[in-house]
Amino acid sequence: MSSAVKRNPTDFLKQIMGRLVSVKLHNGTEYVGVLATFDGLMNVVLQQAEEFENSESKNKYSEIFIRGNNVLYLQQKKNKK
Amino acid sequence: MSSAVKRNPTDFLKQIMGRLVSVKLHNGTEYVGVLATFDGLMNVVLQQAEEFENSESKNKYSEIFIRGNNVLYLQQKKNKK
Amino acid sequence: MSSAVKRNPTDFLKQIMGRLVSVKLHNGTEYVGVLATFDGLMNVVLQQAEEFENSESKNKYSEIFIRGNNVLYLQQKKNKK
Amino acid sequence: MSSAVKRNPTDFLKQIMGRLVSVKLHNGTEYVGVLATFDGLMNVVLQQAEEFENSESKNKYSEIFIRGNNVLYLQQKKNKK
Amino acid sequence: MSSAVKRNPTDFLKQIMGRLVSVKLHNGTEYVGVLATFDGLMNVVLQQAEEFENSESKNKYSEIFIRGNNVLYLQQKKNKK
Amino acid sequence: MSSAVKRNPTDFLKQIMGRLVSVKLHNGTEYVGVLATFDGLMNVVLQQAEEFENSESKNKYSEIFIRGNNVLYLQQKKNKK
Amino acid sequence: MSSAVKRNPTDFLKQIMGRLVSVKLHNGTEYVGVLATFDGLMNVVLQQAEEFENSESKNKYSEIFIRGNNVLYLQQKKNKK
Repeated sequence: MSSAVKRNPTDFLKQIMGRLVSVKLHNGTEYVGVLATFDGLMNVVLQQAEEFENSESKNKYSEIFIRGNNVLYLQQKKNKK
Repeated sequence: MSSAVKRNPTDFLKQIMGRLVSVKLHNGTEYVGVLATFDGLMNVVLQQAEEFENSESKNKYSEIFIRGNNVLYLQQKKNKK
Repeated sequence: MSSAVKRNPTDFLKQIMGRLVSVKLHNGTEYVGVLATFDGLMNVVLQQAEEFENSESKNKYSEIFIRGNNVLYLQQKKNKK
Repeated sequence: MSSAVKRNPTDFLKQIMGRLVSVKLHNGTEYVGVLATFDGLMNVVLQQAEEFENSESKNKYSEIFIRGNNVLYLQQKKNKK
Repeated sequence: MSSAVKRNPTDFLKQIMGRLVSVKLHNGTEYVGVLATFDGLMNVVLQQAEEFENSESKNKYSEIFIRGNNVLYLQQKKNKK
Repeated sequence: MSSAVKRNPTDFLKQIMGRLVSVKLHNGTEYVGVLATFDGLMNVVLQQAEEFENSESKNKYSEIFIRGNNVLYLQQKKNKK
Repeated sequence: MSSAVKRNPTDFLKQIMGRLVSVKLHNGTEYVGVLATFDGLMNVVLQQAEEFENSESKNKYSEIFIRGNNVLYLQQKKNKK
C-alpha cells in the first residue's frame, strides 16, 4: 500500500496539480491534459487538453473548464497518448 | 505548463471574461459567444451568441442566459466559427 | 463587447424584467412571454405566455410559473413569434 | 404587462392560493385542482384534484400532495376541464 | 374549497398520519398503507403496506421505509384496494 | 395501526438496527442482510448480505456499504430468502 | 451479527482504509483496489486499481479518484480477482 495514507481525496488532487491527468466523464468522453486547478465540486481546469471519444482524438484545447458534476473519475497519466 | 498555476477554476473564468468562449451542454448543443458574466453555479451569460447543433449553426442571440447545471464544459475560443 | 460587463447573471435577468423573453426547457418546450419575476433557483413567472413545441404554438397562459431546474436557457426576444 | 411586477415567484403562488390551478409534471401528467398550499421546494397540495394523462381524465383525489422536484410548471386555470 | 387553507404541505401530511394513504413513485410503483411517519425530505414509513404495479398487488410489508426522492405524490385513500 | 406512532423515519431505522432487512435500489437490485448502520443520507451498511437480481441470488458480501441516493426502499425481512 | 454495531457508515469505511475493496458504479463498471482515502461525499481514491466491465479487466491505474455521486456500493474484497 502507498507509503502515506492520504488524509482526503482533495490531498490526492493537490499532489497531482500540474501533472498530466485523464478525466473521464459520465458520457464516456475522456480529456487528457495538465491539471491546472480544481475546486470542492470537482470543477477542473485542464491545459493543453485533448478530447477523446472511444480512444479517438476529437479536439484539442489550450484550456478547458470541465464542470464537476459530469466527472466519473480522474487519474494521473504516465505520458500523453 | 502555464506560467501561473490558477488558484481555482473561478479564476480561470474571470480571466476569460469578455472573451470568445464555447459552452458545451449535456445535450450536445454548443454556444459560442462573448462571456459576459457567470456565477458560482456556472450560470453564464453570453453576448452575440451563436447556437450550434452537430457543428451546424441554428440560432443567434444578442444575449443568452444558460443555466449552470446543463453545462458540460467551457473553453476559450481563438476565433468565431 | 457590450458596454457594461454584467456583475452576475442575476443582473442580466433583472435588466430584462418586464420584457419579452423565451425560456427553453430541457425537454425542448419553449415558452415566450413577459418576464414577470424570477428567483435564485431560476424559478420564473411569465405573463401572456405562449407554449411552443418544435416551433408550433400549443397553448397560451395568462400567467405561468416555471420551475427553475427545468430551464435550459433564457433569452430576450425582439418581438412575439 | 400586468400592473404590479411580482417581487418573486412565491408571491405569484400566494396570490393564486385557493384558486383552480394546473400542475404539469416532468412525466407529462397534469393535475387540476384547488391550490391548498405550497412550500419553498414547490411541494404543493391540491384539493378536489383531477389527474389527466394526454388530456384524458384518469383519477380524482380529494387531496393530493405532489413533491416539488417533479413539477415542470404551474398555471392558474380559468375553469375546470 | 376546504374550510381551513393549510399553512404548508407538511401540515397536510401531519393531518393524515395514522391514516390509509397511497404513495406513487417515479417508476410507477404504488404503495398503499398506513402513514406511520415522514420527514422533511419526504422519507415516509408505511405500515401494513401493499405494493402495486399497474394496479396489480405484488408484495405486502408489515413496515416499509420509502426514500423521499423517489416519491411522485402521496394521497389519502378512502379504503384499502 | 402500530401501537406507537414513530416520531420520524430515522426512529424506524434505529429500531431495526441489527435485524434482517431488504434494501431495494433504483436499478431493481435487492440486498438482504443485517442492518449494521445507516446515516442521514440513507447510506447503509449491511452484514452477511446477499445480492438478488430478479429474485435470483448473484453475490454474497460479508459487509457492504450502499450509497443512500440509490435506495428506493428498505423493509424488515421476516427470514432470509 | 458482527460483534460491534458500527456507529455510522463512515466508521465502516475508516476500518477498511488501506484494504482491498471493490467499488461498483451506477454504470456497472467495477474498480478493485486499495482504499487510500474517502470523504463525506463518498469521493474515493483507490491505489493499484483495476477496472472491470462485465467482470472483464479493462484498465489498471496506479491511483484513481472516483467521484462519489457515481458510486452504487463499496465492499471489502477478500483477495484480488
